[in-house]
Amino acid sequence: MTLPVFDQTAIERAVTTQLVLDTVRDALIAHAEGRTSVPPPLHMAFPEADGDCHVKAGRITGATNFTIKIATGFYDNPTLGIPSNHGLVCVVSARTGQIHALLDDRGVLTAWRTAAAGALITHAMARPDATTLAVFGTGEQARLQATWLAELRTIGTVLVHGRTLHKANALCEQLHTHGLRARPAETQEAAAADMVITTTPAASPVLSATHVREGAHVTGIGTDMPHKNELPPALFRRARLIATDDHAQCLEHGDFGHAVRAGAAAQNSDIAAGELLKTPVDRPEAAITVADLTGVGALDAALASAVLEQLLR
Amino acid sequence: MTLPVFDQTAIERAVTTQLVLDTVRDALIAHAEGRTSVPPPLHMAFPEADGDCHVKAGRITGATNFTIKIATGFYDNPTLGIPSNHGLVCVVSARTGQIHALLDDRGVLTAWRTAAAGALITHAMARPDATTLAVFGTGEQARLQATWLAELRTIGTVLVHGRTLHKANALCEQLHTHGLRARPAETQEAAAADMVITTTPAASPVLSATHVREGAHVTGIGTDMPHKNELPPALFRRARLIATDDHAQCLEHGDFGHAVRAGAAAQNSDIAAGELLKTPVDRPEAAITVADLTGVGALDAALASAVLEQLLR
Repeated sequence: MTLPVFDQTAIERAVTTQLVLDTVRDALIAHAEGRTSVPPPLHMAFPEADGDCHVKAGRITGATNFTIKIATGFYDNPTLGIPSNHGLVCVVSARTGQIHALLDDRGVLTAWRTAAAGALITHAMARPDATTLAVFGTGEQARLQATWLAELRTIGTVLVHGRTLHKANALCEQLHTHGLRARPAETQEAAAADMVITTTPAASPVLSATHVREGAHVTGIGTDMPHKNELPPALFRRARLIATDDHAQCLEHGDFGHAVRAGAAAQNSDIAAGELLKTPVDRPEAAITVADLTGVGALDAALASAVLEQLLR
Repeated sequence: MTLPVFDQTAIERAVTTQLVLDTVRDALIAHAEGRTSVPPPLHMAFPEADGDCHVKAGRITGATNFTIKIATGFYDNPTLGIPSNHGLVCVVSARTGQIHALLDDRGVLTAWRTAAAGALITHAMARPDATTLAVFGTGEQARLQATWLAELRTIGTVLVHGRTLHKANALCEQLHTHGLRARPAETQEAAAADMVITTTPAASPVLSATHVREGAHVTGIGTDMPHKNELPPALFRRARLIATDDHAQCLEHGDFGHAVRAGAAAQNSDIAAGELLKTPVDRPEAAITVADLTGVGALDAALASAVLEQLLR
């Protein structure tokens, strides 16, 4: 029997935003409840090509399938005219070890689970009357975070902060086509929005804690390696509620870890993002809330399994 | 572009025994010279189905490609009428991280590189006038070790030692179809052959060191996990030359490691198999020589790359 391989087009055709949101919500809750297993990843470095390869596996306890995700990042590729990132997801039976299928998704499933986690937790932690959203960064995640959050709640205006006005304008135009009002904004104005989502690969904070207003919520999704840092420790010091998608991982390489090491947050001051999705947040109106999302392998497993189920229908 | 997937039939059609032997010889030499990289594998356990999954990566330094090999073993599968083992090999560019192709080989590449390594090192270490070969075990590796060694040197008779006479006879018939003379043999007679290759999953030694004759060579290929053990420590005590395919790995989970822990061999008494393939062995005629092969990830990388090159021609 030939191994089925599904490409990005087939995957995009088979899946709805709602399916991704539902699957990621359930997986974050499962992870918060300890019903997932995520072994240490395999890693290879290719310094001569500024490249690396990560292999991550994950499973929701009791699920029929588990997944192995291969992801490469070779950062000289753009000079060759090819994308930096590549990868695929292998869906394997947890009952028999048979490889069911390969999702040749070119990273789209990772983008979706990241977007879904950000939108879900931002919606859960922000005040019900929050209306302005600021996104820091102008890439695919900035676009997805805004459009997917708009699936969950009404957004008045999206403020886009980019490193260049040109890129900010380009994203605003994309958001207009999704029916969203959007305009470029400087750092200070963007940091003062009701909801702030940072989506950059920054190595130092992209906003100042003093600009964040009481009652606002901030979600950071870009800090996925120890050398990265989007949110300043001072923001965590002001926060009354801190959520992490994985406590140990956020301590090790998230913005939360930077804040703990800086003495701005206690090591156990965070709550699992999945807990907040299970039980509505009881947030003091004037409080600042912060979420630090670093990406959980079990979400890949849950999403790939759900997508394959749709593809095989 | 669709990701190319090559199945077992295509792989078998594209490859000659000679190509596998040449590739594995070069890779063993590269490994002996430190020109390979093999990161720690990723592992998941599925105790409820008596299953496990290993992901292994490997690279020959400077090679265009590297590989990621996914292998599962679910040992309740035979009760469901499906094989215990499954897996595939992913060939990835070490220059750009692009995934070139998937080899849906169902484990055949692993079987070939194991057979090639065993045949090459047995041929290199056995006396030039050695003629009788004994194989312990009656499975695929027993067949491959005999037939591939026959590609490298003339074999007078193959003595087959199995747990049942029925299985030993079945393998003899297979070997006859390959033009080899073969007959079943009891432990003691088999252990006294000029060349002995053990291919079993035994947890305790399959032969007695006292039955091995002066001048004989013994290769063990079945001990690939700490609880396994095919060759007795006393055989290593009698050996004048000991080869390992990977010093650290054979210490950790090979027959060599059992011998060292039993005080029958010094921790640094082995020589890299690749060294012996590079430089002809200067063996005293009457000496006993032993090889312990546990399987090296860089061989998978070399073989998969060579096979893909043939497939893409």
